[in-house]
Amino acid sequence: MAPQFVRATVRDMEGYVPGEQPGPSQRVVKLNTNENPFPPSERVMQALSEVSAEMLRRYPNPTADIFRDAAAKLHGVSRQHIIAGNGSDDILSIATATFLPPGGILAYPDPTYSLYPVLAAIGECKTATVPWDRDWSLPIDRLLATGANAIYLANPNAPTGTFVSPLKVAELAQRFPGLLLIDEAYADFAEDNCVSLVDGFANVVVARTLSKAYSLAGLRMGYAIAQPQVIHEMMKVKQSYNCDAISMLLGAAALEDQVYAKSTWERTKSERARVSSELTQLGWTVLPSQANFILASVPGGSGKEMYLGLKQQGILVRFWDQPGLRDKLRISIGQSHENNALLAGIQMLTAAGKAA
Amino acid sequence: MAPQFVRATVRDMEGYVPGEQPGPSQRVVKLNTNENPFPPSERVMQALSEVSAEMLRRYPNPTADIFRDAAAKLHGVSRQHIIAGNGSDDILSIATATFLPPGGILAYPDPTYSLYPVLAAIGECKTATVPWDRDWSLPIDRLLATGANAIYLANPNAPTGTFVSPLKVAELAQRFPGLLLIDEAYADFAEDNCVSLVDGFANVVVARTLSKAYSLAGLRMGYAIAQPQVIHEMMKVKQSYNCDAISMLLGAAALEDQVYAKSTWERTKSERARVSSELTQLGWTVLPSQANFILASVPGGSGKEMYLGLKQQGILVRFWDQPGLRDKLRISIGQSHENNALLAGIQMLTAAGKAA
Repeated sequence: MAPQFVRATVRDMEGYVPGEQPGPSQRVVKLNTNENPFPPSERVMQALSEVSAEMLRRYPNPTADIFRDAAAKLHGVSRQHIIAGNGSDDILSIATATFLPPGGILAYPDPTYSLYPVLAAIGECKTATVPWDRDWSLPIDRLLATGANAIYLANPNAPTGTFVSPLKVAELAQRFPGLLLIDEAYADFAEDNCVSLVDGFANVVVARTLSKAYSLAGLRMGYAIAQPQVIHEMMKVKQSYNCDAISMLLGAAALEDQVYAKSTWERTKSERARVSSELTQLGWTVLPSQANFILASVPGGSGKEMYLGLKQQGILVRFWDQPGLRDKLRISIGQSHENNALLAGIQMLTAAGKAA
Repeated sequence: MAPQFVRATVRDMEGYVPGEQPGPSQRVVKLNTNENPFPPSERVMQALSEVSAEMLRRYPNPTADIFRDAAAKLHGVSRQHIIAGNGSDDILSIATATFLPPGGILAYPDPTYSLYPVLAAIGECKTATVPWDRDWSLPIDRLLATGANAIYLANPNAPTGTFVSPLKVAELAQRFPGLLLIDEAYADFAEDNCVSLVDGFANVVVARTLSKAYSLAGLRMGYAIAQPQVIHEMMKVKQSYNCDAISMLLGAAALEDQVYAKSTWERTKSERARVSSELTQLGWTVLPSQANFILASVPGGSGKEMYLGLKQQGILVRFWDQPGLRDKLRISIGQSHENNALLAGIQMLTAAGKAA
């Protein structure tokens, strides 16, 4: 039993459950946590080789300016438009602490990234979960009706991969008096993004991560783009030295190599189309995805059986034993040979099922 | 003006102000932020050279077990007794979110680490600041009288460097029904510590950092030691991947080289004695310190003047323009040649003052 000196809210919490992380020596096809299947840029490894003992000994720059400058240059904004975080989870924590008072309301379309309710619970906030429209379009009126202090919108959404056009998001930003956080963890795999909304809407914060698009999930670097007076408030809430000296340097190097990063996005998008098409031919229903993963319904309806069957073959995908998701798997797009292994594994399980 | 969609608490906040961090190219004697003056262990640099692209591409182990195991071995406890953090500031944030409900009370002896009230404000908690006893001993009865949910005790304390014996801390833990966090950022420079209290007191959390004792302020690694059922609750609140793949590896390597770390502590303690003694001879009043810094009163009473005079000579120390601290400077203990530069700078300013 939890000790009495623990907050009641925390005693009752489950906490966020991350996807399985096999040890580095385990040989698996890992399509369960949406990492980029390609290695980080050579420039990142070059920057790593330049890390000195003195950089480690001293406190890092508290605001990670070397990284902010790289992000600002990439998006054509000023340093003051950027806050750096220890992954975009840190950005989401900072946002929750900046914009949501205890007792406040956090609204989001549902299903979405399962961290949002955890952050709300820690901040002693209420959540208003608004089901997506049937065609996965944005339920603007119903989101506005929640009277929320803040709306979090993952776009592309997780775990669906579906995408809302910046025009629709702008309509929400325009009509909503609270803070609209657009969690663009997967935006680099999409056809468009909402960064340009920052200019016109003071209540928009766009969150980004280097975990997916820049192959740096192990490094923990993320950032947000917003108007300077909004970033200023978020800066008060972040931990004093939330980014370490190595991460800010390597993160900047990654952002500076757009040519390489884009090549990984293009290859992922092309493989996404291929895997989606082949699964459809096998009788799966695949949601149109603009992320580096797909959410697909298993013919026959048992996501769990397929998940376990694939796992036995050393192929990891993500399954949630939850209403609305039990017939589905979320599959990260890997390199060609990994996707081939996945498709072969599925075909084998399907044939075995038919034979039985 | 701060936008209306920002929490009122945050709009009113100042945020924590870190000490000055000159650029790496600036030639200064940097005695203002309590870094260890010696470089990190060679084993840390060796571990750095072994970081692979694949480690960066993948999500890190969510609980930093490689690091927890090194810390557990060091302290003779189990992995379940340890939580790893992105610096001990992260541990303090996690503790505040785990043990302090909004409206709850955080008590601490005053003056102390200026981050505590910032964390309380973010958590919408009240603070109860209890002045230290005159001889810097622990005001146990007055701390208990606050009715706090949690007490944070920096030991050795910052910015004073003073130390409370584990026996006195145990008395507080015994009589206090709430959570007692002992912030041991500087404990490795002291004659004793409170880690052994964890065994007997479920309400004790000991926080540690690698920033000072292991020369890794740039890396952001800290941890806490507590009973497993307490660590379990703190784990729910931490960010899913709060430590990056590089930091956990290098942090473990640092903890494993105790021989080297201890040699830096011994040299620092010996220099601390020398600097304290020389300043006393120059008419300063130096608090007895068990940390890697000293808090010393300037003869004549103007800390600011001395701070600015030293800064002009390229010597950075820490000054707070606050009641009770205006006549004092906090001086980190450097390597011998840095301490010599400090003492020479002070002598020059003193002579100039007398001549004027």
